[in-house]
Amino acid sequence: MKIGIFGSGIVGQTLATKLDKLGHEVMMSTRNAADLYQRKPAFKTWHEDHPAIRLGNVNEAAAYGHLLINALQGLSTLQALKTIEAQHLNGKIMLDIANPLDFSNGFPPTLSVCNTDSLGEQIQRAYPDLKVVKSLNTMNANLMTDPRELPHDQTVFLSGNDEAAKTQIKELLASFGWKLTEMFDLGDITTARGTEQLLPIWVRIYSKVGHPKFNFRMVGI
Amino acid sequence: MKIGIFGSGIVGQTLATKLDKLGHEVMMSTRNAADLYQRKPAFKTWHEDHPAIRLGNVNEAAAYGHLLINALQGLSTLQALKTIEAQHLNGKIMLDIANPLDFSNGFPPTLSVCNTDSLGEQIQRAYPDLKVVKSLNTMNANLMTDPRELPHDQTVFLSGNDEAAKTQIKELLASFGWKLTEMFDLGDITTARGTEQLLPIWVRIYSKVGHPKFNFRMVGI
Repeated sequence: MKIGIFGSGIVGQTLATKLDKLGHEVMMSTRNAADLYQRKPAFKTWHEDHPAIRLGNVNEAAAYGHLLINALQGLSTLQALKTIEAQHLNGKIMLDIANPLDFSNGFPPTLSVCNTDSLGEQIQRAYPDLKVVKSLNTMNANLMTDPRELPHDQTVFLSGNDEAAKTQIKELLASFGWKLTEMFDLGDITTARGTEQLLPIWVRIYSKVGHPKFNFRMVGI
Repeated sequence: MKIGIFGSGIVGQTLATKLDKLGHEVMMSTRNAADLYQRKPAFKTWHEDHPAIRLGNVNEAAAYGHLLINALQGLSTLQALKTIEAQHLNGKIMLDIANPLDFSNGFPPTLSVCNTDSLGEQIQRAYPDLKVVKSLNTMNANLMTDPRELPHDQTVFLSGNDEAAKTQIKELLASFGWKLTEMFDLGDITTARGTEQLLPIWVRIYSKVGHPKFNFRMVGI
């Protein structure tokens, strides 16, 4: 499938790598590829190893993808989406992995929106014809795309208003190695508040254990 | 040990039952016992089955307990604590189980404080000589006191500024049936933001599965 990924950070790269490996055609967004190459030599090296992955701006990535993935920083997401022509979003499914983390006061970050709203809902409200599915946002990128790196069962949550869209994202998750029994559909997009609010404890646990290879598992459900 | 429990709701009752069974001497707070008996016949029946459990007002429960437990509703906690004479709090350990859930707009509740503050921190700031340990607030009362009701390993988090106080609470948790490997010390009391912010997803999962006998387990830590 043609997949457009918004964001060229580590989450975007990890997803692009996995999707490319699984045979999908991927375009990843960056504001300026030449600039990115210069600023981040590691990105250039990675891209040379994955030449099939296309780079474009966020509008081009939206136009390219039949499925869209938001791997931008949470605080940049709404601004970046504004540069996309509406017809490239309407009717499509967007997997939203971003969290509205605000690092402006250092570590640990706070959430720029929470409790009575969420980034997932903000995107859904701004683009009613986009089918937003919030998922994968509660863990490290390596576990998103390769959950079997941990020997334990884990939980991956899904939030979204469109049942068929959630089903399609579940199929994508299954192709990453997620078991159906590990997928937990919380309900509509307002439940994204719950998963985004897992981040404050995630960052504290990360501080404490010193590595990101851990995850939430719901037991007894 | 003499233990004062603030709150006579289901969490307070469940804790009092367990502590009584374990041989502790317990006083539970209520604003007016006679009134409570009349309003809640189930409470009267329960109390008749547990005659050793004393009832007093919150100041009496604070004076009685060498260890204190806050099982009040989150929104009522700070107001209720104001009625306690300072010498009954100073130097004591208080296990804070309350969550600042605001049901004023119905279900699901929001949090009355979160993200940049927490109820645990508010209590600690208001009573600097009290040793606040936030724990057990991320699960149903029956699992708090009887975690082996679930066949799975689970995680119980602890937040607090005083290491010795956390050690004492860990001993209490162990007496409830918690394994040492299930206890996760997040750090100082500011980490209570993380555990209180687990409630929004907890209530959504509860809605979805239709029972409260589930819990968080961190895997890979």
